[in-house]
Amino acid sequence: MLAPFTTLAGFRAVFDALPQRDAAAEAAAIERNGQLTKPKGSLGRLEDLAIWYAGWVGSGRPALERPQVVIFAGNHGIAARGVSAFPPDVTVQMVANFRAGGAAINQLCRAAGAEMSVVALDLDRPTQDFTQAPAMTEEELVAALAAGWEAVDDAADLLVVGEMGIGNTTAAAAVAAGLFGGSAGEWTGRGSGVEGAALEGKTLVVAQGLELHADHLGDPLEVLRRLGGRELAAMAGAIARARVGRIPVILDGFICTASAAVLHAISPSALDHAVAGHSSAEGAHPALLAKLGKEPLLMLGLRLGEASGAVLAIGVLRGAVACLSGMATFAEAGVSAG
Amino acid sequence: MLAPFTTLAGFRAVFDALPQRDAAAEAAAIERNGQLTKPKGSLGRLEDLAIWYAGWVGSGRPALERPQVVIFAGNHGIAARGVSAFPPDVTVQMVANFRAGGAAINQLCRAAGAEMSVVALDLDRPTQDFTQAPAMTEEELVAALAAGWEAVDDAADLLVVGEMGIGNTTAAAAVAAGLFGGSAGEWTGRGSGVEGAALEGKTLVVAQGLELHADHLGDPLEVLRRLGGRELAAMAGAIARARVGRIPVILDGFICTASAAVLHAISPSALDHAVAGHSSAEGAHPALLAKLGKEPLLMLGLRLGEASGAVLAIGVLRGAVACLSGMATFAEAGVSAG
Repeated sequence: MLAPFTTLAGFRAVFDALPQRDAAAEAAAIERNGQLTKPKGSLGRLEDLAIWYAGWVGSGRPALERPQVVIFAGNHGIAARGVSAFPPDVTVQMVANFRAGGAAINQLCRAAGAEMSVVALDLDRPTQDFTQAPAMTEEELVAALAAGWEAVDDAADLLVVGEMGIGNTTAAAAVAAGLFGGSAGEWTGRGSGVEGAALEGKTLVVAQGLELHADHLGDPLEVLRRLGGRELAAMAGAIARARVGRIPVILDGFICTASAAVLHAISPSALDHAVAGHSSAEGAHPALLAKLGKEPLLMLGLRLGEASGAVLAIGVLRGAVACLSGMATFAEAGVSAG
Repeated sequence: MLAPFTTLAGFRAVFDALPQRDAAAEAAAIERNGQLTKPKGSLGRLEDLAIWYAGWVGSGRPALERPQVVIFAGNHGIAARGVSAFPPDVTVQMVANFRAGGAAINQLCRAAGAEMSVVALDLDRPTQDFTQAPAMTEEELVAALAAGWEAVDDAADLLVVGEMGIGNTTAAAAVAAGLFGGSAGEWTGRGSGVEGAALEGKTLVVAQGLELHADHLGDPLEVLRRLGGRELAAMAGAIARARVGRIPVILDGFICTASAAVLHAISPSALDHAVAGHSSAEGAHPALLAKLGKEPLLMLGLRLGEASGAVLAIGVLRGAVACLSGMATFAEAGVSAG
């Protein structure tokens, strides 16, 4: 669907009237869950997940049949500052690897039975180095938000977004600090594997960005424009599109969560349709999830991005929905309810 | 395959010469993992899991194609003591529900792409009330161990065992206490949902069992015979069969782990082929996993049994194996290795 905005003001207006989950479907799911052939509450978080999913897709006995995974790729001016263990060319190379089916996320999507697509965002035009200027112009930000919005399949019944972009944990750290305050050191982590002096340099880049833009951090979209990147903006656009279309979302790691946090800062209910797929090994991810009030489903020490943790969590959600919708009730099965 | 034992001594002899994992396959997997298109270590526990799996199935680039799930059901003399929130008839009723496809585990297996079978163990002959006598005779124990052994498909490339049996968290608590010491209260939990006076009564049953059999707890198989039950013994037999056949195992919740712990007590290497699928909401499960040195893959607050948590973890293992075996190397993909 074409994005219903061509300006930042238009994107902002999306949050003025967000639809809510279907309370009747949610109530029906709660009622059904209470009758299924298991001790009450014995499926733990699966029960909460399935009820949440039922409310958003608007069915008390839902199916999960069309999960969509989109990977957004962007390049970053700050990558030239040595903030990553990998050279900037790797973004383009990895996009080719995604398209050839050779990356981790290709295998994880196949194992999870999920369709995956890749959107490369102006890789030949990196964002500006945010220690020198805003990363994006307003037009560039709107274009990236729209690219994310338009990548969402209206018929999807679950959305997962992920990213690739050398330098983008640096951008995400800056965005998180810009939104929530705190020092550069609190939000900056090892990313693809920087340590020691390289990590100190990366932290300094974040600190310089925060200092340069210090007077412009009151507006979440301005934080995203000045310190983020195209793939971060596209993820935010896609998650917003899903919110408007009541498509449930599983959030991935630190960079995805930082993107989502921009929406949360615009409107606290903007992420009600989203659960946290996992807690990553990127140091500040748990703190970022806590800011959003999201408890991760998985904790497997991943720090890859590419939607990898969220796609693993699809299996958990699939199991949860299958139990809610497929189990027999005590009455149907002739089992004594205790 | 017919069990190679007809006596407890015969079962015990299995542990005299356990095969080890294939060190060459494991080394090949480690080598391959280091070349894949991702930052080193960025798949976290998935990398360790895939390498573990490679060693046990004996291939540096393994597939996971034939996961087998077996649910063993048994009835318990102690169920008459009111230790469960459900009446003893529910074991038979739930076996019918499994066979009709209506239980949680049916949905979870379908979602995970796993074959599932059910083995009902003499449900019309509950074990003896262990507060009055040993739960099983030696012949009954050997028969249950053999039933588990023989339920394993030699062609499976992953085994998950689960259970159903009203009263079996009580038996598992008694087995855990018998193996590891500690009070009945430390090991006894809510099971299907007992609280208050009912939980006190359940704890008392465990304490009475421990007291009656106190002089016979030095031998793990004697602990299993006196305090366990047929489905616990069958799970132990199946896990032992998998160990001998180098079939990897994902352990389920408290009851499955208590069964596995019997093997661990016989030989500390008996569970090298097993990982912990999840940490359940049954209070003593984390302590039991810690005794075995196993870190759970999932923590979702499940307390259902039926192999539910282990089957959810199949998706994680499947993703791990798919990444190891399916990803391109840096050289293949033309990606700069940083």
